[in-house]
Amino acid sequence: MAVNNVYAVILAGGSGSRLWPLSRELHPKQLMKIEDDYTLFQSAFIRLVNSVDDKNILSVTNVKLESQVKSQLAEMQTKFCRKSSYRVITEPEGKGTAPAIALSIKYIEKLNKDKNIKEDPIIIAVPSDNLISDNEKFADAIKEAIKLAQANYIVTFGVRPDRADTGLGYIRTKRNKKIREASVKGLKVEEFIEKPDKETAQEFVDSDKYYWNSGMFVFKASVMMSELKKYEPDIYDIVKNAEISSQTPTIPYLDFEEMPDISIDYAVMENSKKLAMVPLECDWRDVGSWEAIYDISETDENGNYVMGNVVDLDSKNSMIYSTSKLITTIGLENTVVVETEDAVLVCNRDRTQDVKKIVNHLKERHDSTQLTHKTVYRPWGYYTVLNEGNGFLTKCIYVNPGAKLSVQLHHHRSEHWVVVEGKALVLKGEEFIELNNGESIDLAIEEKHSLQNPYDEPLKILEVQRGDILDENDIVRFEDMYGRV
Amino acid sequence: MAVNNVYAVILAGGSGSRLWPLSRELHPKQLMKIEDDYTLFQSAFIRLVNSVDDKNILSVTNVKLESQVKSQLAEMQTKFCRKSSYRVITEPEGKGTAPAIALSIKYIEKLNKDKNIKEDPIIIAVPSDNLISDNEKFADAIKEAIKLAQANYIVTFGVRPDRADTGLGYIRTKRNKKIREASVKGLKVEEFIEKPDKETAQEFVDSDKYYWNSGMFVFKASVMMSELKKYEPDIYDIVKNAEISSQTPTIPYLDFEEMPDISIDYAVMENSKKLAMVPLECDWRDVGSWEAIYDISETDENGNYVMGNVVDLDSKNSMIYSTSKLITTIGLENTVVVETEDAVLVCNRDRTQDVKKIVNHLKERHDSTQLTHKTVYRPWGYYTVLNEGNGFLTKCIYVNPGAKLSVQLHHHRSEHWVVVEGKALVLKGEEFIELNNGESIDLAIEEKHSLQNPYDEPLKILEVQRGDILDENDIVRFEDMYGRV
Repeated sequence: MAVNNVYAVILAGGSGSRLWPLSRELHPKQLMKIEDDYTLFQSAFIRLVNSVDDKNILSVTNVKLESQVKSQLAEMQTKFCRKSSYRVITEPEGKGTAPAIALSIKYIEKLNKDKNIKEDPIIIAVPSDNLISDNEKFADAIKEAIKLAQANYIVTFGVRPDRADTGLGYIRTKRNKKIREASVKGLKVEEFIEKPDKETAQEFVDSDKYYWNSGMFVFKASVMMSELKKYEPDIYDIVKNAEISSQTPTIPYLDFEEMPDISIDYAVMENSKKLAMVPLECDWRDVGSWEAIYDISETDENGNYVMGNVVDLDSKNSMIYSTSKLITTIGLENTVVVETEDAVLVCNRDRTQDVKKIVNHLKERHDSTQLTHKTVYRPWGYYTVLNEGNGFLTKCIYVNPGAKLSVQLHHHRSEHWVVVEGKALVLKGEEFIELNNGESIDLAIEEKHSLQNPYDEPLKILEVQRGDILDENDIVRFEDMYGRV
Repeated sequence: MAVNNVYAVILAGGSGSRLWPLSRELHPKQLMKIEDDYTLFQSAFIRLVNSVDDKNILSVTNVKLESQVKSQLAEMQTKFCRKSSYRVITEPEGKGTAPAIALSIKYIEKLNKDKNIKEDPIIIAVPSDNLISDNEKFADAIKEAIKLAQANYIVTFGVRPDRADTGLGYIRTKRNKKIREASVKGLKVEEFIEKPDKETAQEFVDSDKYYWNSGMFVFKASVMMSELKKYEPDIYDIVKNAEISSQTPTIPYLDFEEMPDISIDYAVMENSKKLAMVPLECDWRDVGSWEAIYDISETDENGNYVMGNVVDLDSKNSMIYSTSKLITTIGLENTVVVETEDAVLVCNRDRTQDVKKIVNHLKERHDSTQLTHKTVYRPWGYYTVLNEGNGFLTKCIYVNPGAKLSVQLHHHRSEHWVVVEGKALVLKGEEFIELNNGESIDLAIEEKHSLQNPYDEPLKILEVQRGDILDENDIVRFEDMYGRV
């Protein structure tokens, strides 16, 4: 197999609602650092660099996460790759892993066509929210899986369960001669079993036939497409007819409305007869809930995992996680406490799967704590709302070196800026004004303006907005280096 | 008894540490609104107006709470009194109720001397943190107690226990002919029993001899002083020799260092042979802990009391109290969650007495969340720190109509002010400048300045401080209408 015909796709569009309030729809868990210097998404990238030519690693994500995914990818590519461009396919909305995989196949086929490669590509599709302890063992398993994929199997990776986890899917396996011939480690997949009850899960753990479904797959493009055609023809049809450019792979909105919302497990894996499994022989964790985070964390002699500004008295088997304010706890048992700048979760450890229900409820009532953090990420940096009052709003705005905000005006508000770190270049009307640390400027209603940081140091300003309507949507953009006009 | 010779003293110096994080050393529970339009301190005042000439109601508090107590008292006196001046005795530090009561006796004797009243005054001493359901029943009990006090008894008020509370003190009573002669409702006090264990408390509830000690007392000045002389001579000696002016009753710091730190219960009530008790025949609650607050609160069908921005799923018998951010809870039982802008408490309901231990720990490590809220009260209004960064700090400052901050300068910081509500009069150097809503001004390091609000509307400004040292102590005051120069 030519190495330039193996591709990897990191599925990075999930909303990670069960890790709320740390994870938000617009800043989900895969883009967070969990127990590492890298985010989960970045770790997935680093793992794949061993197995795949780095310019063949791409990612599928939600259009709303595009700028964050690209900047995390850019950071990785600078560190680990020879030289590469970003390859991010963006979906207008999250629709499960089946459409995401189908779209990446279509995109990779287009790439190959442009490169005049006729051979069928092999694709490795992985989630962006796993923790895997051993990158070499992972690469070994990938090697075996590629052999099986070349023999036209759709290959999954199984993990030997060490506890009766009811939040994971299980795979029942069987020895099979034909599969063994392609890879000595390969096993036949007899059945996919979604989240079993505790008792059944325990039986699975005690048997040697069952593995956890890690959600990672390796397959030939044509094989997966023919299975999609067979079992999920709607996805097949939409993707087949989609106009995908290999240059700007954003999926047009209109085509996407009809797209079924379904995982590849339900769409293909539970039906296909072409499945094989390779055991992944190292620690693997799906960081799917606070209970899973507790599970991978090092606890103290009372079974507590404590993080941040916490004072505890006599709690047991609990996780207390503070990101901003002081948390004090007394006599808790089996409890998860997670605090962020705008929300607190206090949850019985047996109920962490239900955090999703809370998030759905918040979504229904349009509560912004479901969508974003108090700090909101933008292509140019981020801002935090500090204070809202009667006709005014205060923000702290952080602008990356080299970044600039769009040229804009507001119909309903004036703005007052004070530089508190670094130096700013401000467009006010038609004039450019340099603002040093401590200097301030007024921008009137309807006045065209832009905040820019052409310097090497980060820029921080405090903004006081004043007006009858103070809304992020009150913005008219004239020029924007991030294409948001 | 001449009505002008009955005095009431509201003991308002407590730090209310068991209601942290809502209660803080510099903003304790008695100055908070619990389930009423008035604070607990104000409710104590309103109750006493029925029994005592309003100009004879005074308060003892910590010097740090003086401005808050005075402003709460001023509000009450405007509403409920003919016309009166504030009568607040301030102690340099909290030293228990025995010194506070001794000092008020001394002060009242001085008042009487100035007024040429020779008769021994009757004094009603009450805590400032009780909830009492029926002000008329309270006045009835006071009437009976005054009769007993005139017959030289030190009178306590007992409450019939309706549950085996281990956080309260109990009183064992006995019928007594001589006491009945002075007041038909009077009973002899046989013993004070501090916080018993659960089993003993249950025995007390089942017997009809036991009452809760409500911590309210009525006595003749001379009788209490002679008991103090007998049982706590150190307090007696210090107070006897103290120079107390009836005009500015602040206790000099030096005298106070030697003052024993002891409650009147331990100092006198557990020893005195002159005790009588009057039953208080209405609901009485000591708002002494979160469990007590839960106890007085109306719960829903799952036994939960929920306040503020809370989303709960399946919790039971819990109290969830949010003052600023969203709190979400799943499957809690018997748990108290209290959130303020800078701290969260999550506590097993059986352990709410231990909140005090957490507060002591915070005090030891000089954690400011023990001392103040994020919002800090000042004689002229309040401020909230919004944001702290590298060499800068942002505050929102609220100035009451008619108030002004001192004329001051800072050695280490410059300040930038933006008016976001109302109008300001700013002294900058020697010049007065009027700042309208939206206008801003720069104040340099070492520049003399003052923020004033001589107008009828409240003033709100945003302040950006910049400098190498950003500390409340970096202030040189020249003039101050609150005597802080």
